[in-house]
Amino acid sequence: AGLSDADATAQSMADASPAKWHLAHTSWFFEEFIVAPILGDDARFHESYAYLFNSYYDAVGTRHERSARGLLTRPSLDDVLAYRTYVDERISDIFETKTSDIRSCLELGIHHEQQHQELLLTDILHLFAQNPLHPSFKRAEPVEVQTAPEAELQWIPFEGGLVSAGYSGDGFHFDCEAPQHDVFLQAFDLADRAVTNAEWMTFMEAGGYQDPSLWLSDGFATAEAQGWAHPLYWQCRDGEWWSMTLRGFQPIDPDAPVTHISFFEADAFTSWAGRRWPGARLPREHEWEHAAKHQKVEGNLLSTSRLRPAPQGSAPGLRGMFGDVWEWTASPFTPYPGFVPAEGAIGEYNGKFMNGQMVLRGGSCATPEGHIRASYRNFFHPEKRWQFSGLRLARDRK
Amino acid sequence: AGLSDADATAQSMADASPAKWHLAHTSWFFEEFIVAPILGDDARFHESYAYLFNSYYDAVGTRHERSARGLLTRPSLDDVLAYRTYVDERISDIFETKTSDIRSCLELGIHHEQQHQELLLTDILHLFAQNPLHPSFKRAEPVEVQTAPEAELQWIPFEGGLVSAGYSGDGFHFDCEAPQHDVFLQAFDLADRAVTNAEWMTFMEAGGYQDPSLWLSDGFATAEAQGWAHPLYWQCRDGEWWSMTLRGFQPIDPDAPVTHISFFEADAFTSWAGRRWPGARLPREHEWEHAAKHQKVEGNLLSTSRLRPAPQGSAPGLRGMFGDVWEWTASPFTPYPGFVPAEGAIGEYNGKFMNGQMVLRGGSCATPEGHIRASYRNFFHPEKRWQFSGLRLARDRK
Amino acid sequence: AGLSDADATAQSMADASPAKWHLAHTSWFFEEFIVAPILGDDARFHESYAYLFNSYYDAVGTRHERSARGLLTRPSLDDVLAYRTYVDERISDIFETKTSDIRSCLELGIHHEQQHQELLLTDILHLFAQNPLHPSFKRAEPVEVQTAPEAELQWIPFEGGLVSAGYSGDGFHFDCEAPQHDVFLQAFDLADRAVTNAEWMTFMEAGGYQDPSLWLSDGFATAEAQGWAHPLYWQCRDGEWWSMTLRGFQPIDPDAPVTHISFFEADAFTSWAGRRWPGARLPREHEWEHAAKHQKVEGNLLSTSRLRPAPQGSAPGLRGMFGDVWEWTASPFTPYPGFVPAEGAIGEYNGKFMNGQMVLRGGSCATPEGHIRASYRNFFHPEKRWQFSGLRLARDRK
Amino acid sequence: AGLSDADATAQSMADASPAKWHLAHTSWFFEEFIVAPILGDDARFHESYAYLFNSYYDAVGTRHERSARGLLTRPSLDDVLAYRTYVDERISDIFETKTSDIRSCLELGIHHEQQHQELLLTDILHLFAQNPLHPSFKRAEPVEVQTAPEAELQWIPFEGGLVSAGYSGDGFHFDCEAPQHDVFLQAFDLADRAVTNAEWMTFMEAGGYQDPSLWLSDGFATAEAQGWAHPLYWQCRDGEWWSMTLRGFQPIDPDAPVTHISFFEADAFTSWAGRRWPGARLPREHEWEHAAKHQKVEGNLLSTSRLRPAPQGSAPGLRGMFGDVWEWTASPFTPYPGFVPAEGAIGEYNGKFMNGQMVLRGGSCATPEGHIRASYRNFFHPEKRWQFSGLRLARDRK
Repeated sequence: AGLSDADATAQSMADASPAKWHLAHTSWFFEEFIVAPILGDDARFHESYAYLFNSYYDAVGTRHERSARGLLTRPSLDDVLAYRTYVDERISDIFETKTSDIRSCLELGIHHEQQHQELLLTDILHLFAQNPLHPSFKRAEPVEVQTAPEAELQWIPFEGGLVSAGYSGDGFHFDCEAPQHDVFLQAFDLADRAVTNAEWMTFMEAGGYQDPSLWLSDGFATAEAQGWAHPLYWQCRDGEWWSMTLRGFQPIDPDAPVTHISFFEADAFTSWAGRRWPGARLPREHEWEHAAKHQKVEGNLLSTSRLRPAPQGSAPGLRGMFGDVWEWTASPFTPYPGFVPAEGAIGEYNGKFMNGQMVLRGGSCATPEGHIRASYRNFFHPEKRWQFSGLRLARDRK
Repeated sequence: AGLSDADATAQSMADASPAKWHLAHTSWFFEEFIVAPILGDDARFHESYAYLFNSYYDAVGTRHERSARGLLTRPSLDDVLAYRTYVDERISDIFETKTSDIRSCLELGIHHEQQHQELLLTDILHLFAQNPLHPSFKRAEPVEVQTAPEAELQWIPFEGGLVSAGYSGDGFHFDCEAPQHDVFLQAFDLADRAVTNAEWMTFMEAGGYQDPSLWLSDGFATAEAQGWAHPLYWQCRDGEWWSMTLRGFQPIDPDAPVTHISFFEADAFTSWAGRRWPGARLPREHEWEHAAKHQKVEGNLLSTSRLRPAPQGSAPGLRGMFGDVWEWTASPFTPYPGFVPAEGAIGEYNGKFMNGQMVLRGGSCATPEGHIRASYRNFFHPEKRWQFSGLRLARDRK
Repeated sequence: AGLSDADATAQSMADASPAKWHLAHTSWFFEEFIVAPILGDDARFHESYAYLFNSYYDAVGTRHERSARGLLTRPSLDDVLAYRTYVDERISDIFETKTSDIRSCLELGIHHEQQHQELLLTDILHLFAQNPLHPSFKRAEPVEVQTAPEAELQWIPFEGGLVSAGYSGDGFHFDCEAPQHDVFLQAFDLADRAVTNAEWMTFMEAGGYQDPSLWLSDGFATAEAQGWAHPLYWQCRDGEWWSMTLRGFQPIDPDAPVTHISFFEADAFTSWAGRRWPGARLPREHEWEHAAKHQKVEGNLLSTSRLRPAPQGSAPGLRGMFGDVWEWTASPFTPYPGFVPAEGAIGEYNGKFMNGQMVLRGGSCATPEGHIRASYRNFFHPEKRWQFSGLRLARDRK
Repeated sequence: AGLSDADATAQSMADASPAKWHLAHTSWFFEEFIVAPILGDDARFHESYAYLFNSYYDAVGTRHERSARGLLTRPSLDDVLAYRTYVDERISDIFETKTSDIRSCLELGIHHEQQHQELLLTDILHLFAQNPLHPSFKRAEPVEVQTAPEAELQWIPFEGGLVSAGYSGDGFHFDCEAPQHDVFLQAFDLADRAVTNAEWMTFMEAGGYQDPSLWLSDGFATAEAQGWAHPLYWQCRDGEWWSMTLRGFQPIDPDAPVTHISFFEADAFTSWAGRRWPGARLPREHEWEHAAKHQKVEGNLLSTSRLRPAPQGSAPGLRGMFGDVWEWTASPFTPYPGFVPAEGAIGEYNGKFMNGQMVLRGGSCATPEGHIRASYRNFFHPEKRWQFSGLRLARDRK
């Protein structure tokens, strides 16, 4: 709602997709993997849509070039909404008679759609951020003001040892969260909350973006080549930092978690933070999961409708593990021991991206509430910044 | 008409602009050079529009990046149409009282808008050609069928000598058409009509696109790098050649002039044509102008509403000098002797582009009828193909 | 020896360095970190050499651009050899009086030079492979012929469990091999030898390079963009495969380990091999190290002077863990738990490259014998192919 | 002489070639077009040299990639010198018996070699300019000092009218200098000498490099993208301008003609000079030729061994038309009326480069004395700077 046909059509970079494309692609997933196998290809809504709205599944045929999605002014937004209705109706019909046959694929398709709900929001934000008129996705509302600045971070200790990692239980989970397996963790501390904008500004003022000794070699080269001097979307106006948000151009809230930073920036921040807390680093994904396993899945998720990170409060103990910002970990995205991709196209879901990406954990203010869990592994390349990505510090225990 | 908000917003390459941008930019020209100087900056419609819709005038300030025009989903098409109405009304008001002050600038603005009418059409065609659904800008109509194939080309002789070049008269003309000056022409022949699609297919079948000996060195390198094997927009389906047009995906008419070819392709064609007509080459721009000077300005121009090139008939003598396709000449776009750019921003209109571009003459099926004349100099880089550009042969007279 | 001044000067790609540069850089290391701190900057051989021959140490100043090293026709090879003699003499002088002060830095410098010995060879091979004349670095010698084809691979079982990883002992090791720490390994099998050229040809013939379902997404994109259809340096002549080697252009030995393949290719091979051995994959680095820990460090290393991989024989049990080819592992190069880079420039040795690279283990036919050990971690980006890199299969135990 | 094997092998950019390559290519020209046709392919020195040392002649076969010439460390400089001796001997043999058959091709080959003599020097200068050690090609010698600064420029008037252009006479000339033909010139003035370094510094100090209104659009984009702020090879040290020369790193002589500037810079300079001399511009090539036609061919050419531009003196009248610096003209390099390229490979000499390049006239301090004449047309792309290229002002006469 609130997006025009043009808003829903434009593509602001190759990483992002048009809103219209997200809408069509998530319905295509149901059409491709449920409707067409059961009702036949004649039951497809339009002969070209499989070509236009396949994302990356090599096994089901060729597809439209990713970077040219923004040129598809036709089909229109209305056409795409009609497509969604059509597919929904077919799925309803099939569901009545063949519930059990399609249950697992249907479930995967719903979780797939939830992922694209978040991507649709991050991609619209990126698009609107390119527009000098600073359009808002949703009307601005007054920020909840904290009465006191965010408290100094506290370290929560964990003993480590031989622990279990990966999804356990009988609910839905993606293939890359399994199999459950044992890992050995050294003792570690985890920060009680995410790094804040105020802390990030201190890093900036200390020259963090200009000091190669803090950075990974590839990270500093990227920062220089792209001219990074602050998180994505930040702009300085008359000495104050502002940022584009889904609620328009807004002043930075110093107490909220920093977001729209890359893994490279997160990693450099930890090096700098090490001056104060020796050995400060990003948590490994299994450390994060171990710490989150007994936390309740609640926080500033999509259901709060805030649509941006908010201060994580001052209650003692671990806070904000779920929601606000995805937290970069120190772990490359690799298969768990015993991981075997599914046969066929569905096997392309995660397995073929297990190279050169870093794991993020915990969901963000744009993640649907039912979609996140402690074992959930998100992943992006280390230079990407347009997701709601932030960080939380960890360190070895002595 | 017929374009959705999304159609009018998308930009299919950096050379092209969104339809919405063309509409806004041509009104901005009036606002910038007439409304604001007379009524003051407060009379501008919107404070950001000068930034968004300036094309390349350095003298009037910074501007939005050209290649990012397609990301401006706001202002909407409706906003832009309101902008046009607003500016038109301001101009009407001013015109009543200050007719003579603004006459020359107003005239330039109108001719400027006519240029963008043609560009809007060529840019929409390029956009729609990227869409696998092949949208039509205008409904297809039956092609007028010729009863006989286009006649073999005839050579029209010209004596040359010391002739006058450049605009003469007291009507409107662009700065680059002046000053009038003498040039000495050797005797030459000019083909009676443009090269046809049938002739171009013969060139293709003879391996013209694969033979480096026919091409300029830069031309062959470009053809290889971009994989050229036929004119832009052509596709072979079941052995027949089709092409995207403003009237959708259509079979090629063998008798119509070939279009959407680059200077490099036109030049290579002349080398190949030299096997049959020794010394065949592109005409120089002064030869073309000399031949056209006494022709009536009429032909397949925008007013015919055909929106694509049509066979040029069989009447004896020079045909089709105006309309159908812009004809590439052998002449680089350089200043005429005595040319001095105007002072200020208007001086940027043509002068600063006098490098690396080739002159085209005669207008096309998308050129407004009142806009073209014998002295008119259009110009594009030698590798550009998305305009309605074709060619006519010339040769030296022995 | 055997290299001309020109051979020692040319740089065939940005990843490679001229032989002359390797010779100068390894002496610069001693000058920068031992001679200059003790004897002062006046004791440097030449004021510009620190600028020319620093590789990537930000902490010690600016440096010549890496990709322009091949343009340094001066200093000449003779100048560089004189530089080496000069630095060696200074080090000898210092060593007599300050042995203990410089011991650890000297040891690091010697291991650093051993690394560059291998790089010098791989870089010369890359340079000569660009030359249509196929120069040889060393005279060809008859290949030792095996009487029977390489035996079918056997799987060696390992139980896993909680094992120790990382260097232990009091000898030299690089910082990234420490600290020693516990890891938990699931049970696994490891192939008794490396994958051979004959096996690789079967993969090629089966269309392995053309089947995206076998590849990581980034891997297939790279393979397509670079046109990979066989290992680097291979050429097909009259139906036979040949390859450039340090002994010139030679026929492929089917029984020798395949080399000059990227991680992406190695990974795709394992997917294909999974058709025969379900779950075939690359070993993780800790699995490899666990298996190698009790092996004797011997094999086809630089001391054999073969300068290319050779068949690994038919004795039962694990063979060829050291020498022949570096073996790609499934493990990204990340810091061990508790890793802290050294202070100052020496801290840049490994730490800042811990992103986007994959670990290789075991050394190659170009690795100096004293240089390799079970805990040694080499690392390259997953698309690099010019090192002596091959693979060995692993799989989970059921 | 004075070049090492490494100096003669390195290639500093794709536009430049190694000295060794120039030496081999000029002999290859004789081998390809004289020796092989008469004595047969068996008389070639080496079977691979035709592949290695062909420059761009498509008609005689494939060739080594231009940008990879610097990787040919073999054949060595000695091998190439032996090749030259071998070809010279074959030519001598043939010349005795078949003088008349080969005379024209031999003459072309000699002029071809003279062109490469100049290129060898400009390419070595470019290579040495990349080296922080600033090597000299030839020992530095004291600059001749002028007792007074260069005199203010004077304008020499020319009446124009119908004049003859192109080579006349029966001596050697390149195909592009013919046919002789009539052109009509408007009256013009030509500066008596080239623009000096002192004048160029004034342009720099006036912000000429930063003011887009002075530049062609493509020119300013190039200047910004490449960070131009002064001529190629200039460096400012302690407030003084220095430059790399063939005699090493030298202070700029304010009275000498400026050199190593692109057409784009030359053109921008004329716009700026127009503030003082309204209508200042570059001469057209026919104007330049008309003015030079009656000048004696003498000046600071290669035979003076200065190897850099020198002040052009204070004698009244046109000075320095030949030698010192090639003078950019306003004329794109296009065929003369009636130009027809030769049949076969020799026809590729000039014709296929008649696109996107600008004509330069008059030769430089690196041009062999017998090689230059009034009708001689050199040509380079408008952004090239590594030749000895400067400019002379012209203007229309009122």
